[in-house]
Amino acid sequence: MTSTVPSHVSVLGTGLIGTSVAMAAARAGIAVTGWDPDADALHGAVERAGLDPARDLPEAVATSELVVACAPIGALGAVIAEALVASPDAVVTDAGSVKEAVITDVEARVFAEALPRYVPGHPMGGGERAGPEHASASIVDGIVWVVAPTPATDPASTGLVDGFVTSIGARPTRLTPERHDRLVAFVSHLPQVASSALMDLAAVEEADEPEILLLAAGGFRDLTRLAASDPSLWAEILVANRDRIGAALDLYVSRLLELRDRIANDDVGAVRESFDRAKRARLGLTAKPQVRSGVGVLQVPVPDVPGALAALTATLGAGAVNIEDLQIVHSPEGGRGTVVLTVAAIEADRAASVLAASDYDPVRLA
Amino acid sequence: MTSTVPSHVSVLGTGLIGTSVAMAAARAGIAVTGWDPDADALHGAVERAGLDPARDLPEAVATSELVVACAPIGALGAVIAEALVASPDAVVTDAGSVKEAVITDVEARVFAEALPRYVPGHPMGGGERAGPEHASASIVDGIVWVVAPTPATDPASTGLVDGFVTSIGARPTRLTPERHDRLVAFVSHLPQVASSALMDLAAVEEADEPEILLLAAGGFRDLTRLAASDPSLWAEILVANRDRIGAALDLYVSRLLELRDRIANDDVGAVRESFDRAKRARLGLTAKPQVRSGVGVLQVPVPDVPGALAALTATLGAGAVNIEDLQIVHSPEGGRGTVVLTVAAIEADRAASVLAASDYDPVRLA
Repeated sequence: MTSTVPSHVSVLGTGLIGTSVAMAAARAGIAVTGWDPDADALHGAVERAGLDPARDLPEAVATSELVVACAPIGALGAVIAEALVASPDAVVTDAGSVKEAVITDVEARVFAEALPRYVPGHPMGGGERAGPEHASASIVDGIVWVVAPTPATDPASTGLVDGFVTSIGARPTRLTPERHDRLVAFVSHLPQVASSALMDLAAVEEADEPEILLLAAGGFRDLTRLAASDPSLWAEILVANRDRIGAALDLYVSRLLELRDRIANDDVGAVRESFDRAKRARLGLTAKPQVRSGVGVLQVPVPDVPGALAALTATLGAGAVNIEDLQIVHSPEGGRGTVVLTVAAIEADRAASVLAASDYDPVRLA
Repeated sequence: MTSTVPSHVSVLGTGLIGTSVAMAAARAGIAVTGWDPDADALHGAVERAGLDPARDLPEAVATSELVVACAPIGALGAVIAEALVASPDAVVTDAGSVKEAVITDVEARVFAEALPRYVPGHPMGGGERAGPEHASASIVDGIVWVVAPTPATDPASTGLVDGFVTSIGARPTRLTPERHDRLVAFVSHLPQVASSALMDLAAVEEADEPEILLLAAGGFRDLTRLAASDPSLWAEILVANRDRIGAALDLYVSRLLELRDRIANDDVGAVRESFDRAKRARLGLTAKPQVRSGVGVLQVPVPDVPGALAALTATLGAGAVNIEDLQIVHSPEGGRGTVVLTVAAIEADRAASVLAASDYDPVRLA
């Protein structure tokens, strides 16, 4: 399969993901046209990403080699279909969190002749925020970007999406649409439901017990962060993947009830065994460093104490190293943290020298 | 109720919490003796906190006004009872995550004459790490510290605990033992079970689907961070609070199944309504800045983009301001973050000037 990089892409839907993709594309030297039915969102994306705004969808896709549809799930099939129809030869991909329902919708809307140009996709990033004003090219840096062609998809179309995804710094990862939907039910949709349900439960209890949220420490905050996500977007996503999220929820509830029984039976050993297995799995889920082209990446162990980050950035500042991105990885079990530093490729060696001269032990990752 | 500050405290059990309490006490100028049945843990605490090690429990409590028992739940009642018996007049408090089961255990072990000196407590902090090597005084900064006297507790004993807790920078918060146990079931114990169950489920699914964890983005990581906690400690805690965690789990499962039905019925509106309520509650759960005496605290809005933190710390470095602590608060909905800076009190005004001169807009919180 050949992987080629488009010179002009269109982003349809300029919310958080669409605008972030536009910023990452612009960073890679790719021309970007954008369109959103919401004039404010489009204006926000122009301000944030500097993309070229189109007046309507047909204008947006007229000169593009690749169209990235980033509409909410409920509107996504129609947007993809309209793009396939409006442009006679552009490849169309999307960023939808569910694949099978969207594919079925697209297949019902266009003639079979258009389907070789449709490449279902899903960048696995984003978070609980929304809107172009929170967009950043760094949102796609190093993320897994699922590329899920259907049997009808032309391999050349898939190659163009692979090339684009790689060029903007993400990692194209091939899955079938069914497999994608099954896996995200566990690692994305179920966490969203678990988080919202926990927050909602605590909020309802709070009516009787105002102190309940006062006692909420870091663990509760971690568990409920996703509950701040956009309710409309998520309601559509979950309903579109209803069978698989239903199956995942059933398994989750069984597991909770099994733990409930072990606790009720005073079976400390059985609870510990279950927690032990979860702990081992969580420690295996190591943070992956984020890498893209044109930059150098250094991994720097630091003591996980107040002042460590300030000392590190001060050292780099004194060495006139410009930090492009900085990611803090707290080891789940460590007294040490790791800082993953991104700098311009031509500065990476100098950054390593500056750090080594100050008794840091940087490891060059890229 | 009078609040007095002890001049000498003992910490029994020098793991993460015990050693952190010792460090915070030392910072407040309070002499600290420590003891742990595990020689390595005691040695680690001496290295980390500089506390005075005792050879056994009676020696540890001999000259203290206040004893803080930080043993695992299963051993806690015995440690508290032994401390009450070994010292004729020291006040004894504890850091146990469950209160009623521990109180019942203590009451079965000592004569009623000793009970006025026992003040059940629970600092609401810690996290998924363990051991003295991860301890830090900052773990207790600004946290809610539940003080849960029994009907037998002497108010003077409670006042001493209040004074100690305040002096080390935490916030004493009065709850009855029953109320504490009911509330932590929701905001602490249930999140632990929900997190471990989710991680365990994904790990089991992973056996068939190796890609599943590759797709795990930030949301899944947030939800499963607690799963890295100590399985033995948690198994004991949950069993000790079995009735209340059972009730909380039942309510949680009901809520998950209700959401499951709404999703299965394609009821986007009902799912959205439930998620909306959770989102509002989550946004109300604002991050509290952490304040203690002897320091100045500045809240500094920063753009939530790469390089912002480096620029901020470089500005402070150039102004020769020494950062004592730095906490990043990502607004759940903001394109801006907030950095809460802790500096020595005498440097706070200068830090504010240095920042204002570089177009930051710091707000002095303390």
